[in-house]
This record gives sequence, C-alpha cells and structure tokens, in this order.
Amino acid sequence: MSAGTPGLDPALRSWVDSANDPACDFPIQNLPFGRFRRDEGEELRIGVAIGDRVVDLEAAGLFPHQQMKQLLRTSPFERRALRHALVEGLQHGSPQRGTLERALLPLASVQMGLPCDIGDYTDFYVGIHHATAVGKQFRPDAPLLPNYKWVPIGYHGRASTINASGAAFRRPVGQVKPPDSDTPVLRASARLDFELELGIFIGRGNAQGEPIALDGAEDHVFGLALFNDWSARDLQAWEYQPLGPFLSKNFASTVSPWMVTLDALEPFRRPWQRAAGEPLPLPYLDGEANRARGAFDVHLEVWLQTAQMAAAGHAGERISRSSFADAAYWTVAQLVTHHTVNGCRLEGGDMFGSGTLSGPLPDQAGSLLELTAGGKAPLRLPNGETRTFLEDGDTVILRASCEREGARRIGFGECRGTVLPAPKM
Amino acid sequence: MSAGTPGLDPALRSWVDSANDPACDFPIQNLPFGRFRRDEGEELRIGVAIGDRVVDLEAAGLFPHQQMKQLLRTSPFERRALRHALVEGLQHGSPQRGTLERALLPLASVQMGLPCDIGDYTDFYVGIHHATAVGKQFRPDAPLLPNYKWVPIGYHGRASTINASGAAFRRPVGQVKPPDSDTPVLRASARLDFELELGIFIGRGNAQGEPIALDGAEDHVFGLALFNDWSARDLQAWEYQPLGPFLSKNFASTVSPWMVTLDALEPFRRPWQRAAGEPLPLPYLDGEANRARGAFDVHLEVWLQTAQMAAAGHAGERISRSSFADAAYWTVAQLVTHHTVNGCRLEGGDMFGSGTLSGPLPDQAGSLLELTAGGKAPLRLPNGETRTFLEDGDTVILRASCEREGARRIGFGECRGTVLPAPKM
Repeated sequence: MSAGTPGLDPALRSWVDSANDPACDFPIQNLPFGRFRRDEGEELRIGVAIGDRVVDLEAAGLFPHQQMKQLLRTSPFERRALRHALVEGLQHGSPQRGTLERALLPLASVQMGLPCDIGDYTDFYVGIHHATAVGKQFRPDAPLLPNYKWVPIGYHGRASTINASGAAFRRPVGQVKPPDSDTPVLRASARLDFELELGIFIGRGNAQGEPIALDGAEDHVFGLALFNDWSARDLQAWEYQPLGPFLSKNFASTVSPWMVTLDALEPFRRPWQRAAGEPLPLPYLDGEANRARGAFDVHLEVWLQTAQMAAAGHAGERISRSSFADAAYWTVAQLVTHHTVNGCRLEGGDMFGSGTLSGPLPDQAGSLLELTAGGKAPLRLPNGETRTFLEDGDTVILRASCEREGARRIGFGECRGTVLPAPKM
Repeated sequence: MSAGTPGLDPALRSWVDSANDPACDFPIQNLPFGRFRRDEGEELRIGVAIGDRVVDLEAAGLFPHQQMKQLLRTSPFERRALRHALVEGLQHGSPQRGTLERALLPLASVQMGLPCDIGDYTDFYVGIHHATAVGKQFRPDAPLLPNYKWVPIGYHGRASTINASGAAFRRPVGQVKPPDSDTPVLRASARLDFELELGIFIGRGNAQGEPIALDGAEDHVFGLALFNDWSARDLQAWEYQPLGPFLSKNFASTVSPWMVTLDALEPFRRPWQRAAGEPLPLPYLDGEANRARGAFDVHLEVWLQTAQMAAAGHAGERISRSSFADAAYWTVAQLVTHHTVNGCRLEGGDMFGSGTLSGPLPDQAGSLLELTAGGKAPLRLPNGETRTFLEDGDTVILRASCEREGARRIGFGECRGTVLPAPKM
C-alpha cells in the first residue's frame, strides 16, 4: 500500500510557503480533511488543510460535493486518486497553482466545524495502562477484569453532544452519592475530568449482518482525529452500574477539526505484537498485516490553560505526554473487526473513541483521575496553581503529531474545550 | 390538556369503515404517525393510520413536508392543530371526505419503514421486575443495586441497526466464555433472547447545556411505539463489565411502524406514585402533574411464532402479557428530565427504549431469560415444542393496546422480527 501512496516523500515541498515550515502540522505530506464555513449561517464545506491555508475542495474542482458524507463513502482507490490530485496541485512548481490558489482561504479566516455529521459514536477502552490504573482504584488486587485481554471493550456513547474544537460547555449537574450518606444529592460535578483519546472516523460502512474481516478492516477507516471524552467522575461512580457510563459522559465531548488519513499515517506504522506472556488474540482478531503494520506511532500531548493563565496571556502548560502505539492494547483494524463480528452495521461518519490513551508511567496519564491519584495528589502547575479536577474556566488542549527519521513530521492540529460554570439550579 | 385534545370522544366514528371495528388498532381516536413507501426505491413519506388505510399526509394537504423530522420538530400546539384537522377530515360525514379519500392507500399495499430516522438511541432500564429478576440471577441476596431506586438507569445503544418491523436478522456471532474454560471462543450466540420494550420518540429537542424541567418534559415527546431489544445473553455475560452491553445488543433491534401520540394516550393516563416504603425521587424528578397523570396504562403482549408454526399456517402463541404502568419504575417525563439534567442535548428523532417491561408475576416476563429462569426451565408451547432461548426461524411479535371504560380502545400495531441462521464462519 505504501508504495502507491502519493505525497509521502519527505523532500516534497508546496508552493504554499507556510506548509514548508518544519513545525507546521499540515505539510503537503499530511492533507487532512475537515469542514469549514466562511460565515455563520453558511453550510459547512469540505476543506483540506495545507500550511496555514484551507483548500475549498469543491471550489478547487477536486470533488463535486460539499457533503462530507459523500467523501466518506468513496473507496480507498478514489481517495488515493484525490490525494494524488491534491499533491499534484499543491506541490512546488505545479502548473495548477493558479486554479488552486483561487480555492485557498486562510485558516484564520474560517470557522471549523465537526469533521462530519457523526452518526453512531462508540467509545472503546483500549488504553491498557488507563484501564489498569483506574481498575486499581476499585480493585487493587485485580485491576483488569478477566475479559480485558480478550475483548476490545467498548460501549456506545452520545453523538449529539460531540462538539467542534473551541466550544465551551457547561459543567454538568447530576446525581452524586456522598460517601457519608445513604441517599444521593443533585449537584454540579466536583470531579470533572478530561480524557485523552483519538477519534477514529469510519469511511465506507458495511451491511447489517456482514462482518468486516481483519484484512480489509482499514479500508473502512477514513482517518483519525483528537478526541476529548470529558467525564464527571462523581456522577460516573454512582450511576455506572450495571449498564455503564451515561450522564457522566454524554454532557459534552470535543473532537479536533481535521481527519488525518491513514495514507498520511503510512510512514508512522509500527508492528503490533503481544508482549511475552500476554494471550494471543482469537483468530478473528489476528492476522499477518495487522501484526506487521497495524499500529500507528502517534505522539500525544495534553495542555491545560487555566483562567488565570489565559488572563495572563499564557498559552497553557503541558501536563501529559503519551503515545497511541504504546498505550493501545488493540489496533484500529481490530476495533473495526470486533465491532462488526456480530453483524453490527457501520456507516460513513460513525466515530470510535479509542479510550483514554495513558502511557505506562504516571506522568503519561491521559486523565486527571490518574494524574492526581483520584484527586488525592493535586497537580502543581508552574504558576503556583494546583488542580485535582477541572475548575470553571479551565481550557484543555489536546495535540498530536507523528515524527520519525526519514519522514516529514505531520500534526493533528488541536482539540480545545473550555469548562463553563454549571447552570444555576 | 385533556380538554383541548380533539378526537378522544369514544362515540366518534370515521367514514373509513374499517376504523370503526372495535378490534381495530387504528380508530379515529388513535391517528398514529409513521412512514411508508408505495414502491421499493421510493423515499419514505409521512402517513397516518386509520382503520386499514394510511393517509398520505402531504397528498392530503395536511402537512407541507414529506420529512418526518419536520413533523417531529413542530410544537405541541401545531401537532394539536394537525390532529384536529385529521379528526375533522376523517370523521363520519366530513365534507373533506372527497379530498382525503384521494390521499388514502390500503395499508396492505404499502411498505412501512422506521417511524423516523433515528438519531441517538438510549436504552433505559425502568422495568423494576425485570431488573429484580435479572439481578437475582447474579446476586440472589441483593438483586437491585443501590442506585436503582434513585437513578433512572440508562445507557446508549446503537441506532444504525434498529430495523423496521418485519425485518429478519442474522443470529449474532461473538465471544463467549464457556464456564469450563479459562479462555473465550468465537461462536454463534446460543442464548438469543427478545426484550419487550416501548420506544419513546423525542419530538422537539433542547439546546446543549439546557436541561428540560419535569413539568414541560412531555412537550418534547412525540409518541410511543413497540420496541424489541434483541439480546445475546452469552455474549452479554462475557463482555459487559465494566462498561455495559455492546455487541450483545447492537446486532439488531426492531421497532414498530407507528408512533402513538401522547394525545391519543391521554385517556389512558394513570397517577404515578411510589409504593409505601419506596424512596421518593429527588426533587428534579418529582412534580404534581407527574404524580397525578404521569403514567400510561398500556397493555403489552409477546407472541412467538416458531418456524414449525409458520409452516402450519399458525399465527403464533402468546407467551407473555404485561403492562407499562405496572412494570415501569419511572415515567416518560422523568426519563426526559433525567436524560437532560446534565445538559445533554436531545433532538427530534432520538429514541429511548424503556427497558424490558416485565410484570411482577413469572408469566408476565418480558424476556426468555426470565420466562425460562435463565434457560433452566424450558417454555412448553401448545404444539409440543419447547424453548429456552430463540431458535433460527423463530418470529417474535410484540403487541400493545390501551383499553378502559369510557374510552375507545386503541392499538399500537405490531413489532415483528425473525431470527435467521448465523453467517457461516
């Protein structure tokens, strides 16, 4: 597949100068897809990020629809052809520069929306270090349940409250049971947390009753984005048995604007294997291509900007770093195959959350629940502030990038959300 | 509200003769909404059931759109006006008979689809007798968890596999852990079950961050339908901890074609109250109108038609009877308010499942898990067959109706689905 993927040569440069800055998330090697509008009230249109610009795909004559759903449904072959055309047109010296230049807008001048209308949203739980750390808080002797190493654990989440990056949301109110009381109270969450995840966007779907085999599973994946699955830990503790998290999660989540395609991630593949002593997956989740190149080496970061920092013009502090490949117990392909082994139907625009992608070390945790040992060990910020859980006015920013010798670094942009005070009760 | 609701007079008759048959589910007092097509390939159109006919709402000049989403978004006032116009036009002696007659099609000539495009689907767990019976199989001493009587327990389900009534689906394959093994195997579910539920369709939504108070909650509900939440108990037992059911549920569910409006259900309201000794709900879930008239007295039935019965031309056997008002621990209004207390956004076309509506007695159970004591006590059918769980070729039919002195009986139609063999592995 790699051989046929256009635009991966690290020497390739674009006539969009800003794209050639080594620190830029969106060089010609990336070309992620998202949706933008120029004015409030305008319908969202498909765009491709290049440097500090966005290509209006329809205006550029590269795709005849403004509907992302149409693009999601294209075959891998059609998507490859579109990538080829974008690389041809955007590369330094391209004769199509004139045409494309007219379809280019400054990113700073547009408003980015959700990457697509999200259909069904599934949240997985593939971060084994997260699952272990959280499990330890409940069951010190047996943090991982017996199914964890066999079943890619997942559950359905709420699509209607997935927000575009930049949106603020109100601290949720809900039932909490104080430890010293037999009865719950209704109050604003006091243990509001973030969760560092990747969002996996489904491209082509499958028919109900027709499982997707592991070998072709990635053909159904359009791309990855950053995802913050905000969580109210106090609501969660009281409500989640026996059917799982509900109001503790569905008040808001945030996704970054750009779907980074698997084509762009091609140079950052890694072998996937089970460590010695770990059980091998059941045969439907095991395959040669998955072992050889099923993992993606995506570097992840969490930044916190408190209201005090924002007032001081400070962009925030990095509070955690992690890696998708190190954190995830299962690959993207395995998630697709597991999700459909029972005949479940996926459709273009469905999104999977990866689950919280904590690394193995304490400072690589993807949530405050872990970073502060359940609120017992406050996080000390360089400006003297401390945090156990999120406070009103806090902004959490997730970032991701891929980097290795012999490849051009690409980035995901950012996934940003701000906590507003709870509504008055 | 009752005083202003047109068409509830039990003496009212329609010029559609079949609607006046006392056994008919769709008299002029009902007027449920659904979607139909005349031919494969045609877009679904909004229809209203009357006797054995369907009114094409747009063709009748009663609503200017074919899109159910537009109808769902109307205000209760607009919906009342539409109901008024339908009653005026369809009642015996109406001068508009000529116009409406041209917009009438035999139900037998059309194909019914899903009542609407379903957005987010939430499954609740309000059947306290079901929760108790299922809980007993896991925890004989404490069948109900401590949160059950405080939190209307719910979780998100899969919208993409909700099928229209009549559709068959394949038995799901999934991971099952045999009791005598330490490791799971992949196989077709051997404990496939139905779940008798009502579907609650959301009409007008709310903005994210804006909870819906109990007093106005029913204004956001468009109507009720029958819902079968097919469940693979063996998959469920292995996968569901700690985040809830996933592949054990999302392979298929089935909804009946007609949304019976709260206006039509008005005569069948019942007071809602907590039994002596039961905790009162927290204040956000308690209110005078909810206590006085929050419950709906809907009679429910489950029928099973085996392949052998179908071959013999036998329509099936009733295997359970239950009642929404007796089974449900929470009201529809309480579910809407609880779902949004954290700011979660509901939208027209979202659907809630009620949870399995088992009555208090063993033969009122809404699932085979309960009817057969977890498969230990097979159900004996009159033709000599037995069932622990569902077999290939079995058809399950759910039915519902409302009946009381002084009101015209109304019905919900039926919710029908058939089990096909699992795909070859």
